[in-house]
Amino acid sequence: MNDVLNAIKNRRSVRKYKPDQISQEELDLILEAGMYAPSYGNQQPWHFTVIQNQNLLEHIDRTIREEIAEARIESFRSLRANPDFRATYGAPTLVVVSGRKDGSDWRVDCSAAIQNMLLAAESLNIGSVWLGFMTFYFERKEEVEKLGIPEGYEPFYGVLLGYRADDQPAFAPKRNMDVVNYIR
Amino acid sequence: MNDVLNAIKNRRSVRKYKPDQISQEELDLILEAGMYAPSYGNQQPWHFTVIQNQNLLEHIDRTIREEIAEARIESFRSLRANPDFRATYGAPTLVVVSGRKDGSDWRVDCSAAIQNMLLAAESLNIGSVWLGFMTFYFERKEEVEKLGIPEGYEPFYGVLLGYRADDQPAFAPKRNMDVVNYIR
Repeated sequence: MNDVLNAIKNRRSVRKYKPDQISQEELDLILEAGMYAPSYGNQQPWHFTVIQNQNLLEHIDRTIREEIAEARIESFRSLRANPDFRATYGAPTLVVVSGRKDGSDWRVDCSAAIQNMLLAAESLNIGSVWLGFMTFYFERKEEVEKLGIPEGYEPFYGVLLGYRADDQPAFAPKRNMDVVNYIR
Repeated sequence: MNDVLNAIKNRRSVRKYKPDQISQEELDLILEAGMYAPSYGNQQPWHFTVIQNQNLLEHIDRTIREEIAEARIESFRSLRANPDFRATYGAPTLVVVSGRKDGSDWRVDCSAAIQNMLLAAESLNIGSVWLGFMTFYFERKEEVEKLGIPEGYEPFYGVLLGYRADDQPAFAPKRNMDVVNYIR
């Protein structure tokens, strides 16, 4: 096993962060990793909004929790019932990844960029999670307008970054290995 | 720079392969890297069809070239005019990645799995490319049926794997770094 394979296997979604901010150097390396994802025809159809303003992070957390409370999915509503639940998990940095809507397959390219960012963070001993909850926030168009996303881009997902508050769990959730067939 | 960041920055799409087959051990590590991608609710909505049959690989190449010849996109038609063009670039292994159609956001999860596989290959000094051309093949439903993809899964993209026929180019194509804004 080499360091790349180890990072891929050991990376975990982190849902509890220290308040300390990551360094600009670390952030730059993580963003650059995103930019080095492959893309359809090298279109590089991504944009990154780095949110480190504590008031805005708390506002995003509250907004998502309000949306979750109204969600039809039962497991989401039960999260809202937990008074300790925070949709942004106390992370000091949130990167909103947006895609250029005229990109040939921009969601796919942006997903590759996000996975690069998660692995880059892992390699720097920084916790991260692909924040699906952000899609609740994106439903509020008037909120999204405040993020300064350039014209022609659509917000896609969020990535939280920060130092882990707890030790990394030893094992990733069990994988289903029975998902391969061969034609030889 | 650590090995993970280096793999992310140095990885290139490889479009010329040696005919030698990669080892089963290498293939297993690459597939496992795909399986360790994060996914929505840990649904792991991916399936991998490993094609190493030379006749089938050549048939896929021919089929894609026929479809490209009919494509409305001019750059694709000009590829067809090049007698040396091979849609599968002579690679000895093609992995078809399919997604479980009832997955919450299966295209995104499968994209993360593919990016993991590309980086795992890079870490093992194996060339790879995210094969967008495969979508031409998937348009022929009667061909897709021969691949043994399980019920409920939809073919998504292909990944070619093999040893590079040429040295890795020194630099990745230039990245547009002007894609970040900050809210602090």
